[in-house]
Amino acid sequence: MASPIGFWFDFSSPYGYVAAERIGDLATRHGRDVRWRPILLGPVFKAVGTAPLTMLPIKGEYSKRDFARTARRLAIDFRLPEKFPVGTQVAARAFYLIDDADPARAADFARRTYRAYFAQGRDIADPSVVLAIASEAGVDSASLAEPLKGDAVKERVRLEVEAAMAAGVFGSPFFIVDGEPFWGNDRLPDLEEWLRTGGW
Amino acid sequence: MASPIGFWFDFSSPYGYVAAERIGDLATRHGRDVRWRPILLGPVFKAVGTAPLTMLPIKGEYSKRDFARTARRLAIDFRLPEKFPVGTQVAARAFYLIDDADPARAADFARRTYRAYFAQGRDIADPSVVLAIASEAGVDSASLAEPLKGDAVKERVRLEVEAAMAAGVFGSPFFIVDGEPFWGNDRLPDLEEWLRTGGW
Repeated sequence: MASPIGFWFDFSSPYGYVAAERIGDLATRHGRDVRWRPILLGPVFKAVGTAPLTMLPIKGEYSKRDFARTARRLAIDFRLPEKFPVGTQVAARAFYLIDDADPARAADFARRTYRAYFAQGRDIADPSVVLAIASEAGVDSASLAEPLKGDAVKERVRLEVEAAMAAGVFGSPFFIVDGEPFWGNDRLPDLEEWLRTGGW
Repeated sequence: MASPIGFWFDFSSPYGYVAAERIGDLATRHGRDVRWRPILLGPVFKAVGTAPLTMLPIKGEYSKRDFARTARRLAIDFRLPEKFPVGTQVAARAFYLIDDADPARAADFARRTYRAYFAQGRDIADPSVVLAIASEAGVDSASLAEPLKGDAVKERVRLEVEAAMAAGVFGSPFFIVDGEPFWGNDRLPDLEEWLRTGGW
């Protein structure tokens, strides 16, 4: 099989959620796997010198409108959570703990976490919510609870964020396919055309 | 005829150039006119708290790659100018002087100015270049030279930028159709679907 599509995202990113709902089918159409990589936008934005979209004057209001409009066009269930954005460290840590044992299950956990936050309004910053979602994804959440609090997984997430930035990732969602970077849910048609044609 | 598509752009904006090459045909397909409105991103970015894409670490390199990739996919002639970005006050002033007499000619001038900068590498910050482009668009550039230096047109551009921001414009290209805002060349498919369906 050809190399997987690298997919970086923050669990608090609305466009990341929308892209997460689409990337699986897209990859399948082109015989690719997806390598799911949650990151934390906080340190990334700090390095790039940007800020969360919704916190910017004028642009923030437009962004909220565009999140909802984009989701409606794609028939994706979406409601901007009351608490937004939220810290996604715990969700990212849980992801990597699951991923080390079973990447397919981790991808399922990621999709469920996104839906929990953006479709069901659950607080994914709350560790008990994250453990419940893991459980819904078929993970033995009792065995997850302890490592989730440990230093090892914190360091693991830090290194993943560092690796993402080293690869050129500066936002969410972000894709790299055969070395070619694509930033944003709105670049998925380009990414698909790239896969179809081999690039232009 | 239905209300025109409002189209705001800065002459130094690569995605604005690409959109300028596309918006005319798109509007025609849906029986709309385009209201061309050059703005100056300097004061806009200051108000919103953002910076030119290419000046940001990591994001800047990606942006340059994406400008060229986007143009290639659309078969639009593009080369990032050596001097980039440039001040576009003079070009914007010339536009409004032409626009007051003949909006269609002003739109032609705008397209020619964009091509001069992004396809031909001409320095559109230079008033003599702007006057030459006006001449190529059929404008009596001798009669343009004096008003171009005057305070009246400076104030006019300032007011247009203010009006744009008051309408919610925070970037380039920016479109408003029937009250609905769309930011970015990558939202043109959404804008077209909005025109086709009346919104969703």
